[in-house]
Amino acid sequence: MPALTATSSNRVAGGTLTKYTFPSASLGGLTTAVNVYVPDGAAAAPAPVLFYLAGLTCTEDTGAQKAGLFNSAAQHGVALVFPDTSPRGAGVDGEEADWQLGTGAGFYIDATEEKWSKSYNMYSLITDELPAVLGAAGLGLDFSRWSITGHSMGGHGALSIYLKNPSRFRSASAFAPIANPAAVPWGIGAFGAYLGGESVSANPTWLEHDSSALLAGSKAAPGSLHILVDVGTADQFLAAGQLTPEALEQAAEKRGAAGELTLRRQEGYDHSYYFISTFSPEHVAFHAKYLKA
Amino acid sequence: MPALTATSSNRVAGGTLTKYTFPSASLGGLTTAVNVYVPDGAAAAPAPVLFYLAGLTCTEDTGAQKAGLFNSAAQHGVALVFPDTSPRGAGVDGEEADWQLGTGAGFYIDATEEKWSKSYNMYSLITDELPAVLGAAGLGLDFSRWSITGHSMGGHGALSIYLKNPSRFRSASAFAPIANPAAVPWGIGAFGAYLGGESVSANPTWLEHDSSALLAGSKAAPGSLHILVDVGTADQFLAAGQLTPEALEQAAEKRGAAGELTLRRQEGYDHSYYFISTFSPEHVAFHAKYLKA
Repeated sequence: MPALTATSSNRVAGGTLTKYTFPSASLGGLTTAVNVYVPDGAAAAPAPVLFYLAGLTCTEDTGAQKAGLFNSAAQHGVALVFPDTSPRGAGVDGEEADWQLGTGAGFYIDATEEKWSKSYNMYSLITDELPAVLGAAGLGLDFSRWSITGHSMGGHGALSIYLKNPSRFRSASAFAPIANPAAVPWGIGAFGAYLGGESVSANPTWLEHDSSALLAGSKAAPGSLHILVDVGTADQFLAAGQLTPEALEQAAEKRGAAGELTLRRQEGYDHSYYFISTFSPEHVAFHAKYLKA
Repeated sequence: MPALTATSSNRVAGGTLTKYTFPSASLGGLTTAVNVYVPDGAAAAPAPVLFYLAGLTCTEDTGAQKAGLFNSAAQHGVALVFPDTSPRGAGVDGEEADWQLGTGAGFYIDATEEKWSKSYNMYSLITDELPAVLGAAGLGLDFSRWSITGHSMGGHGALSIYLKNPSRFRSASAFAPIANPAAVPWGIGAFGAYLGGESVSANPTWLEHDSSALLAGSKAAPGSLHILVDVGTADQFLAAGQLTPEALEQAAEKRGAAGELTLRRQEGYDHSYYFISTFSPEHVAFHAKYLKA
């Protein structure tokens, strides 16, 4: 297990936020950074864990600084983990050229195209390596009680990782997620580059990371899924057709298991962290209900 | 009254945050920006107002993005105003050379030294111009119920402006304020530049903006002042001798009016917005008690 290096530490909300770095096997050995909030008392009684996956252009700091999660997490005794959004410094040609691809835009999948596949494996980092590395480090995190949330690209990450691994998580939520990436420009660009193919017809493996397809086809026992999604009606990327929450609703309808998806359209809210910080306490409370059940 | 230009608007916490710009007479005609949060319902029943003054290097966005004030403000029906920390683009020689002086470092005083005095008049902007301009704009702000808070340099600003004008404010609070600027490096540098003189002995007018001196000498009726201060014990600028909260405690003791100052040393917290966002809901609740009395 790679050693964690603590590079900063801040007291916050009756606990401690520590930034760790370590060489990530998933990312081809590149150093990755992760912020971990542990509420006081977790050394004696390990805390359940909520991951927050950030969106395009963001880092491990964005959610920590702006999402307003800490006081609610403290209130519910929940630990928070803020991973980065991509490898850094992989050296792939063009990775810095487009904010929607490469650095800051890992899309929480494992690349299969040779150009990217050595280091663009954020799915493995989030799903396997981080729980293994952080779990082994004795930080007071109880990964048997684990939930996941995220924003935009990170909302896609949270929902798709949850739906691929429903038995490993208690619940999932998202703010303005890319709900049907296989069918919208952001997802088509990223899946095309990382997984290959011009479209989902040319490469149906895209559907293995598409939350709407995953929900519609889920083998999880009916009623066992717990999903909360908020999206603002004034979200500029909703208007641009990148988010398509209706696809997720249609998938839930197709699956036909009532009460698994709560999708709220929040009147007048946009894509910003002002939107996220307004509703983040409700998301923490939603997860706490399942994490502490 | 100058016209306000709305340059951005975000829905947040059951209200609207709007950034306005206007040409400021206090700042020699330079355009200044201010973020204003108005909770829903204030059009019908104007809301009491809490100013948040930010610290060195910050802008009108810093507190809005990181201080975690909105949900508490919404809960208590309080409007929030986030001014900038200095003029921008005044063209004073050297104003960009030092993060502790000039741009981002207006120190909430009116400069008397000719080099700075045309535009470095943040005291007048905060105390007179902003309430006049915002009050006349029909935004739903009730300046007859007005309180003030701030961080570091902005904590100095909040406390000193309050103590110079106790009848205009209901209450004041601060996070890690520069409590005795006339006696510490940050204040000596700024007061020396803006007001002249090498030290407070050479220029006793410095004391007119020193919260500890103002509190010790306050003519306000005993028991009429309401001040809450938080400072972290791991604050790097506390260790560096820039904050000196003990000076404020000694001033309160000298004044001899019990119960006016609550000063809390928060174990392990530092100077960052992680500290502020932990305790900001308690500050809003503190002000709401007086704003809604």
